[in-house]
Amino acid sequence: MKRPTIADIARRAGVSKGAVSYALNGQAGVSEATRARIRGIAEELGWSPNTAARALSGAAAYAVGLALCRPARVLGIEPFFMELISGLESELSARSYALTLQVVADPVSEVEVYRRWWAERRVDGVVIVDLRHEDPRVPELEKLGLPAVAIGDPRGAGNLSGIWADDAGALTDVVEYLVALGHRQIARVTGLPELLHTRIRDEAFIAACTRAGIGEQQMVQADYTGATAARITRRLLSSRTPPTAVLYDNDVMAVAGLAVAQEMGRAVPGDVSIVAWDDSPLCQLVHPPLTALNRDIAAYGAHAARLLLALIEGVPTDDFQDETPRLVPRGSTAPPRPDR
Amino acid sequence: MKRPTIADIARRAGVSKGAVSYALNGQAGVSEATRARIRGIAEELGWSPNTAARALSGAAAYAVGLALCRPARVLGIEPFFMELISGLESELSARSYALTLQVVADPVSEVEVYRRWWAERRVDGVVIVDLRHEDPRVPELEKLGLPAVAIGDPRGAGNLSGIWADDAGALTDVVEYLVALGHRQIARVTGLPELLHTRIRDEAFIAACTRAGIGEQQMVQADYTGATAARITRRLLSSRTPPTAVLYDNDVMAVAGLAVAQEMGRAVPGDVSIVAWDDSPLCQLVHPPLTALNRDIAAYGAHAARLLLALIEGVPTDDFQDETPRLVPRGSTAPPRPDR
Repeated sequence: MKRPTIADIARRAGVSKGAVSYALNGQAGVSEATRARIRGIAEELGWSPNTAARALSGAAAYAVGLALCRPARVLGIEPFFMELISGLESELSARSYALTLQVVADPVSEVEVYRRWWAERRVDGVVIVDLRHEDPRVPELEKLGLPAVAIGDPRGAGNLSGIWADDAGALTDVVEYLVALGHRQIARVTGLPELLHTRIRDEAFIAACTRAGIGEQQMVQADYTGATAARITRRLLSSRTPPTAVLYDNDVMAVAGLAVAQEMGRAVPGDVSIVAWDDSPLCQLVHPPLTALNRDIAAYGAHAARLLLALIEGVPTDDFQDETPRLVPRGSTAPPRPDR
Repeated sequence: MKRPTIADIARRAGVSKGAVSYALNGQAGVSEATRARIRGIAEELGWSPNTAARALSGAAAYAVGLALCRPARVLGIEPFFMELISGLESELSARSYALTLQVVADPVSEVEVYRRWWAERRVDGVVIVDLRHEDPRVPELEKLGLPAVAIGDPRGAGNLSGIWADDAGALTDVVEYLVALGHRQIARVTGLPELLHTRIRDEAFIAACTRAGIGEQQMVQADYTGATAARITRRLLSSRTPPTAVLYDNDVMAVAGLAVAQEMGRAVPGDVSIVAWDDSPLCQLVHPPLTALNRDIAAYGAHAARLLLALIEGVPTDDFQDETPRLVPRGSTAPPRPDR
């Protein structure tokens, strides 16, 4: 039988997971009447903090697992993962927890890894990244009862606790900024289409363009690699009506896009403005430095680790909304030429 | 009392560690007489494979440790570490070993981590990177008896087994290539001066320039970050006799150097040629793509993992010389202008 979760209690009580968390932790934020009612439901459902369950199952591993499902070459060049790992690590090592890392080929092998880790009590919990639409890992982790924190939109995280940021809001900021500069032909080069945050950004892009009365927006699917982004950018800039601004879904692709513009003799930002999602140092290495959406990825990692350690210790937790990525304008964006 | 190692046996027998490895493994490569003599010495010294020692100490952790001693921001952007991790992981997961990662602030905390890992049997062995001149980690690991593989020149690895490549040879290739193109004013922007491979490359650079009759070579100490490399490049290119070619000790610094040249209106390679050490995808993202020293870092990682697993299983091993980095000429190098 599945162990009842905070989400189960919240559903039954008709309150938020946060309220349940406050009630069971004895924190302020709920009335005493609600607290009593929530505690009653928790007792009724047989809820117990995870520690109790863990004590029955044997010793703690004092390790947290992270499975990375990307090809080695992509992992190598994309700063995201190493920054995330640094952030996770900063919290974990302060609490003497180790970080166990595994590179996996696909989501199926990833679930296999979780089963093995949990069966052998090699980890006390896991952090999952790259949430997909109807992600198969979520029900599997719920079934296993392995404490897990998802980095991604709560709409895709099921009953798992999550760290998330408002990607739609950030994307809207970028479009509104480009529109304010005078751009009407805006292209978006996306990340992997199966990832939930790609869909969220896609929808926000279409909505923001539509609100601005732009019918000519273009979206092209890519895969975070420089090679794909270069091919797509070459095609975009060779078209009869090339975009005057291109928004890339990561820093690596934006840098590749800049190089293609230079290769084709197009001025950045004169002929084309470029915006990068994720403001790694990469964005400031190139010339002109790239306008980017800045988020503190290491902080995401630290927050995820803190949330996971709380879960492992049986402290009820709720989703944590991290800072919305902030637009940092640099030399790669400007108004389009008057003749466009 | 310290457990005798392959190196002790080699010293006593007056043969190489490789010969001892062949003799104790029953492999070809030594005469039967030498094999018998080496086995006699091994017995005399009380040598036993590590497995025996480990069996006494309790169960295996089936985990291998990697401590990374770099600031989070540097780890994030430099592709080296993630590629190394991917390579380690490919071998480890095939053998059901986990990779345990820890980011540390300095070599002293790094040694603390090793002591704790070994005392708590959290890992069965470790891989160490960034060998320093008279590295304090080496004698400490030898003392602990924790199986360890060093990625770096064997001259700095003491009795530890190592994976290394001929950095001096690779650097000489670059200098000879630039000299053949006609360059006489060559600058080198180095990595951290305390790292052994920085010294090895420094010496090779001076030797190669001297052999070519170049007295004007310049070396400037940097730290692998784009920010430092940008500052140094700005200074180099502003001097009265700017270099016509600059060799950077990693890809991130080379990309930053290229951006500074563009910012200052200097043509690459017309006014200045640029060469990067380490050919990550980053080098091909920019325009012009960078001439680089290519090495398969993931393969280094895989070799290191294989060597370490052999050590853990008590199989005698020897240092493994990996491929020498290969010069891959691209658009960032050309003969200097005739007037220079």
